[in-house]
Amino acid sequence: MRAWAIVTLMLAMISCASPSRAEDGYELWLRYHPLPPAQVTLYNHQATELIAGAATSTQDVTRSELQRGLSGLLGHTVSLSDHITHDGAIVVGTPGSSALIGSLHLNTQNLGSDGYLIRSVMVNGHAATAIVAQTDVGALYGAFHFLRLLQTAQPIEHLDLRETPRLKLRVLDHWDYLNGQVERGYAGASIWDWWKLPDWRAPRYTDYARANASIGINGTVLNNVNAGAIILTPAYLQKVAALADVFRPYGIRVYLSIRFSAPIEIGGLKTADPLDPQVQAWWHAKADEIYKLIPDFGGFLVKANSEGQPGPEDYHRTHADGANMLADALAPHGGVVMWRAFVYSQKNPEDRAKQAYDEFKPLDGRFHANVLVQVKNGPIDFQPREPFHPLFGAMPKTPLMMEFEITKEYLGFATHLVYLGPLFEEVLSADTMARGNGSTVAKVIDGSLEGHPLTGMAGDANIGTDRNWCGSDFNQANWYVFGRLAWNPMQSSRSIAEDWVRMTFTNDQAFVKPVVDMMMGSREATVDYMTPLGLVHLMGPGHHYGPAPWDASESEADWRPVYYHRADHQGIGFDRTSTGSDAVAQYAPALAAQFNDVKQTPEQYLLYFHHVPWDYRMRSGQTLWHELVAHYTQGVEDVKQMQETWQHLDGHIDAERYRQVAAFLAVQEKEAQWWRDACIAYFQSISGLPLPPGYAPPQRSLTYYESLKFQYVPGFSSW
Amino acid sequence: MRAWAIVTLMLAMISCASPSRAEDGYELWLRYHPLPPAQVTLYNHQATELIAGAATSTQDVTRSELQRGLSGLLGHTVSLSDHITHDGAIVVGTPGSSALIGSLHLNTQNLGSDGYLIRSVMVNGHAATAIVAQTDVGALYGAFHFLRLLQTAQPIEHLDLRETPRLKLRVLDHWDYLNGQVERGYAGASIWDWWKLPDWRAPRYTDYARANASIGINGTVLNNVNAGAIILTPAYLQKVAALADVFRPYGIRVYLSIRFSAPIEIGGLKTADPLDPQVQAWWHAKADEIYKLIPDFGGFLVKANSEGQPGPEDYHRTHADGANMLADALAPHGGVVMWRAFVYSQKNPEDRAKQAYDEFKPLDGRFHANVLVQVKNGPIDFQPREPFHPLFGAMPKTPLMMEFEITKEYLGFATHLVYLGPLFEEVLSADTMARGNGSTVAKVIDGSLEGHPLTGMAGDANIGTDRNWCGSDFNQANWYVFGRLAWNPMQSSRSIAEDWVRMTFTNDQAFVKPVVDMMMGSREATVDYMTPLGLVHLMGPGHHYGPAPWDASESEADWRPVYYHRADHQGIGFDRTSTGSDAVAQYAPALAAQFNDVKQTPEQYLLYFHHVPWDYRMRSGQTLWHELVAHYTQGVEDVKQMQETWQHLDGHIDAERYRQVAAFLAVQEKEAQWWRDACIAYFQSISGLPLPPGYAPPQRSLTYYESLKFQYVPGFSSW
Repeated sequence: MRAWAIVTLMLAMISCASPSRAEDGYELWLRYHPLPPAQVTLYNHQATELIAGAATSTQDVTRSELQRGLSGLLGHTVSLSDHITHDGAIVVGTPGSSALIGSLHLNTQNLGSDGYLIRSVMVNGHAATAIVAQTDVGALYGAFHFLRLLQTAQPIEHLDLRETPRLKLRVLDHWDYLNGQVERGYAGASIWDWWKLPDWRAPRYTDYARANASIGINGTVLNNVNAGAIILTPAYLQKVAALADVFRPYGIRVYLSIRFSAPIEIGGLKTADPLDPQVQAWWHAKADEIYKLIPDFGGFLVKANSEGQPGPEDYHRTHADGANMLADALAPHGGVVMWRAFVYSQKNPEDRAKQAYDEFKPLDGRFHANVLVQVKNGPIDFQPREPFHPLFGAMPKTPLMMEFEITKEYLGFATHLVYLGPLFEEVLSADTMARGNGSTVAKVIDGSLEGHPLTGMAGDANIGTDRNWCGSDFNQANWYVFGRLAWNPMQSSRSIAEDWVRMTFTNDQAFVKPVVDMMMGSREATVDYMTPLGLVHLMGPGHHYGPAPWDASESEADWRPVYYHRADHQGIGFDRTSTGSDAVAQYAPALAAQFNDVKQTPEQYLLYFHHVPWDYRMRSGQTLWHELVAHYTQGVEDVKQMQETWQHLDGHIDAERYRQVAAFLAVQEKEAQWWRDACIAYFQSISGLPLPPGYAPPQRSLTYYESLKFQYVPGFSSW
Repeated sequence: MRAWAIVTLMLAMISCASPSRAEDGYELWLRYHPLPPAQVTLYNHQATELIAGAATSTQDVTRSELQRGLSGLLGHTVSLSDHITHDGAIVVGTPGSSALIGSLHLNTQNLGSDGYLIRSVMVNGHAATAIVAQTDVGALYGAFHFLRLLQTAQPIEHLDLRETPRLKLRVLDHWDYLNGQVERGYAGASIWDWWKLPDWRAPRYTDYARANASIGINGTVLNNVNAGAIILTPAYLQKVAALADVFRPYGIRVYLSIRFSAPIEIGGLKTADPLDPQVQAWWHAKADEIYKLIPDFGGFLVKANSEGQPGPEDYHRTHADGANMLADALAPHGGVVMWRAFVYSQKNPEDRAKQAYDEFKPLDGRFHANVLVQVKNGPIDFQPREPFHPLFGAMPKTPLMMEFEITKEYLGFATHLVYLGPLFEEVLSADTMARGNGSTVAKVIDGSLEGHPLTGMAGDANIGTDRNWCGSDFNQANWYVFGRLAWNPMQSSRSIAEDWVRMTFTNDQAFVKPVVDMMMGSREATVDYMTPLGLVHLMGPGHHYGPAPWDASESEADWRPVYYHRADHQGIGFDRTSTGSDAVAQYAPALAAQFNDVKQTPEQYLLYFHHVPWDYRMRSGQTLWHELVAHYTQGVEDVKQMQETWQHLDGHIDAERYRQVAAFLAVQEKEAQWWRDACIAYFQSISGLPLPPGYAPPQRSLTYYESLKFQYVPGFSSW
C-alpha cells in the first residue's frame, strides 16, 4: 500500500509539473486549488456527502460543479448519496425536484426564479447544509455561493443565507465582430469561433458559462452593437443556437445585437421603416424563426441612429417607434429589447453631454413593456470619471438599464491595474434626488424607485482569447465585480474585491489586505494621472491610447479633446452651468443648483461643469493650476506605490502571475508618467504658468509628446 | 509517513483535476507525461543522475529541459551532479565546456555547429550516456533527441547515435501581420503580442522556442512577406530584439520580411533603386542598427515584384540586383537574404507555371554568396499535388531554399486531417535528373548536388493563438514533420509520423499503427476529393475555401479555376506539352520527354500537363471521366474510413482530444462530400456525360453549389 501510494503520488505530482500546468489565469476565480490543511480539516465535517439530483441539465452541472469544487478545495471526492447517512451532508435542489428538500419545509417563498437559501439544518438527527431554491438555476447560484464560502475561508457551520438578485437582467455585451476582432478589446480576439460553429463547441464556451453563472450573470449579447445583418441569416442563427445550447444549463440566455436595416439587407425589402407593415411582418417572422431554434432567446440589443448606425430616425420615426416595433415581435416569445440611449450627432451643435437626455427624456412613457433603455453610466463615454448620466431619475416611466464598460478603453487597456469596482459603486450610489434624498442610481435601475419589474445591468465585456481571458489577471476582477454588482448594486466594491482576491490568489491575509487596498486606490490613481478634477476625453484620437489633450485631428468636433477641456490662457474646463451649455439643468433641481455653483460643485467634477481660472483657489488653498499639477503627480506616485506594494508580495503567490503583474505595473508607471508629463506640458503651454515649486518638469518637450503616433493599437476598429 | 503520503497524493491529484488541466494540446509533442511503470523501471537504470553545465543560457535551458523531461517521464527528479557517482548517469555538454566530456575523447570532428553524438559509454567503471556536441546548441539538440528516445519507448542501453543536419537554415516563415492577423492562418491570431512587446515577454514565446529547438528549427521570420516598412523602425526593432533574446538560448535566430521600398517610406529617400548609392547606404545603416540590437540577427526574407509588392524591377533592375544590394548590407554581419522566386505577373500572357523559371533561370550565377533563392515546392501555389518546381535542378550556381506551406491554405484549413509528410516527401524525393538519375530535389536543396555550403528549407507556419497552437491536434504533426525533414530531407515521413504519434498521444501500438496509417493516407484522400489526376486550383475565390471550379469572379485570369482546368465539351486539363504552353521544356530533357507524352506521364499529373478527352482510356481501362468520378468518390470514402478508424480508438487517449478530432473529422466528411459533389456536378455540366454506373449523383444541384458565398473566412486578408 505504501509503495503504491508513493508511486502514484509521484506520478500525480509530475503530471502536475508538466509544461501546461502553469498558473496562467485561465481558471479565473473558480480556482479550486487545495485549501490549507487546517481549513480542510474544518470543512471536512461539513462536506461528508453530497445529495444532488441530475434529472435536468442544470441539476447536472450544479452537481458537477460541487463535486469539482469540493474535490479541488478539500482534496478528496465527496461521495454522492441518495439520502443523508452522516453528519455533514450537503443537499442541493428545489422542493419540487427533491422530496428530501421538500421535507425541510424551508421558506422558499419570494425567492423568485434566481434566489436561493443556504441553511445549516438538521435532518433525521444529522447536521446538514441545504442549498435550496425554487428553480434549478437558483440552486446552481446557491452552489456557487457555497463554494465561494469555502474558497474565501468563511465559516460554514451555522449558515442562514438568503439571496435574491435585485436586477433581473445581468448581461455581458460583447463588442465582438464576426471576423474575430473585438472593438475595444485588449485580451486577444473574440472567443466565439464562428467559423467552426455549430460543428465545434469549444470547451472554453462551457468555462465561460461557468464563470458567468458563478457571479449571477444570466445573459450574453454575442455580437457588437455595430452589427451586421448577417448574424440574422439562417447559417449564423444555427451557430448562435449552438452557443445557446452550451449556455442553457447555466441559466444564460443569448441575445443578439441587430442591425436596424436588416429587413433591407437580408430581407429584400425596400425600407426598414418601423411603421411599415411589411417591415413589422419581417421582424415577427424573424423572431419566430429565432425562437424555433432558441426557445429561451433573450432578445435584441440595438444601437440606432448613433455613430453611423441606421435607425428609425432615418424614416422620421422616434426611438420609441423603433424599439416598440422590435419589442412587439419579441413579446409573444418573452423576449426584450435593450435600446441604447448612447446617441449623439455631430450635426447637433448642442453640448454632446446633453444630447441623449434631450432625445430620450421626451420619450418617457412611450416604450412598450418589454423595452429597456440602456444608458451609459455617464453622459460622455466611459471616462475614468464622469458625473452620473442625467437620464437616471429623469425617465420614471421607463425601465433604465445601466451600461458599464468593463473593458478599459479609457483606463489603460490591458496593462494598467485599475479596479473598476469603486467607479461602478460611485455611480450606483450617486443620488439622483429624483424623488428626494436617497434616490440613488442603484434604486433607479433596480426598479425600486418607480416600481419597474423589468430591470437590468449590462457590462461591455473585457473577454478575449488571451489565456487569462481578460488581458491581465487583475482585469478579471472587473468582470467579477460587474457580475456581483449586477446581482446586487448595493454591495460594497471593497468586499467584492476581497472575495475576488481570496478566490483568485490566496486567503493569506498578508497578501489580501495590501492587494485589496491597492485595488481600491487604483481607479483614483488613474483619474489623477489621466483626467483629474473633472477633465474628460483627453486621450489619443480614434485608438484612445495615451494622452493627446492637444489633438484636433478627428473629423468631428466632439471627438476632439480640445472640445472637452476648453483650456485657454485664462483657465480650463467646460462651462455647463446656466451661463454655459446649461447641462446642469438636466439634473434634479437641488443637484442642478449645486453643480451650477462653482463653490458647491465637488472638485472631482469641477472642470466638467465649470470653466475655471488657472488661479482659482481650490479648497486646499492652492490654485487650480497648482492642484492640477499636484493631481497629475500624485497619480504617478500612486502607481509607484502600487509597484512597491507588489514587490513586497513576491513569494506569496505563484511566480507566473506575480511576474506578469509586475511587468504590467512597470508599463503602467511608464505610461502614467507619460500622461502626467504630456498633459502638464500641454496645459502649461496654454496657461503660461511656471510649475509650482517642487514639481519636476516634464521629461520631454511638448513637441515630442505631440509627435508620437501609434499604429496597430489593439481594440481599434481599423484592422 | 504513510498518512502524509496519502494526503499529499490526494492534494497532488486534485490539483491535477482542476479546470485548466485539460488535455488541450498546448504541450505539443513535448508531452512529458509519465511513461508506463514497466518502461520507467527500464529507464531508471539509465537515468540516475544528470551532469550538465549551466554556464551559458543554452546550457541552462538544456539542463532544464532534461530535468523537466526526465522528471515528467520517469516520475522522479533526476538529481544533478558534478561528477559520475553511479551507473546510469547522463552527461551532456561539449568538450570545451566540460572536462568530463573532454576526457571521453569522443570523435566530435565534423559535427559542425549543430550536430551531436549520443553514446553509451563507461566512465571510471560506471555506465553512462553521453550527449556530446561541439557547441551548446548541438548539445541541446542531442538532449531533445535523447528525450525523444524515452518518449517513443526506444531502448537506450546501447546507444551510438550521430546526427548532423543536412540543411543549414531550418526556418519557419510566419505570415503574421503586425495587426495580429495571420494570412492563411487557421489557428487564431498571431502569437506575437507586438503591442505588449518589448515590455512583456509572454511565456508562450519560450514554449515556441522549445518546440522548434526540439525538431532542429533554427530560424523564424516573424512577419508576413507582404511586409510593412514599420517593422524596421526603432520601436519595432526593440520588440524584435526582445523576441530574439527569448529565442537565442534555443539556437533560433530571428529574420524579418522587409519591404523593398522601405528607404522611401521610412528613410525619406526618393527612390529604392538598388543601384542608388543612397539606397545602398540606407540599407547598410539599417543593417548596422539591427545588428547592434540583435547580434545574431538572421537576415531578410523578400517578396519583391510579386502580387503588388515593390521590388527592383520598379527601377528596371533585376531580382539579383535587389537581392545583392541587401545581401551586401548584411554580409559584414553574417546575415543572409532569402529571396522568393514566387513571382508572376498578370501582364505576362505566359502560362503562370512557367513565369518564375523564366525570370530566375537567367539569373543563375548572378547572386552574391549570402543569397538563397526561395522556391515553392511546385510551380503553382502549394496545391494538394503539383509536380516539383522546375527551378530545382535548373539553377546549379545558386543555393535554392525549399519553401513548403505548413498551414493548410489549400488542404482544408484547420479542420481537415491531412498529414503533409507524404507531400513533402514526394517533392523531396522527386528526381530532377539535372545531373542524371538520382538528382533528387533533396540533393538540390541540401547542396550536395552542386556543392553549395549555404542551404535551407522554409515552412510557412501554421501557428497561432489557438491553445493547441495549430488549430487542430493533427496539424501539429505538420509543424513537426517540417522540422524533422528540414534537419534531414532524406527521412521517411512515415517514421516521423510514428515518432509524432508516440510523443503526442501514446506508445500504445493499438493506437499508433492505425493512426499512422490514417495519417499516411490522408493527403491522397484530400487530393482525391479536391483535385485528383493533376487538377489544381479549383478552390473558392480569394478565401480559398471549398470547391469553385466554375469560378471566374477573380479579377485576374490566373486566379480563376477555369484558367487551370480548361474543361470543355471535349476534355479537361492544361496542355503544357510542346504543342501547348511547353512548360514541360523547363524540366530536364528526359523528364520533359516523359511529361510531354500523355502515355508516359504519371496519371497523378495527367491533367496538369495534358488536355485529355473525357473518353481517354486510363491505365485502368476506364475512361478519364469514369476515373475522375471514381477518384472524387474514393476521397469521400477514405474520409469515412478515417472516421471509422478513429471511432475504434475511443478510450485509447484522453476524451478532450478524442472529441475534437472526431468533430473535425465530421466536418471533413461533410466538406469532402461537398467537394466531390460540387466538382462532379460542374464537370458533368461541361462533359455532358452520365455518371458511371454505381456512383451516386451529387446531393444538390450545381446551381446550389454555385450559390454558396462565404464571409469572414479565416486566414483571408480582407478583415
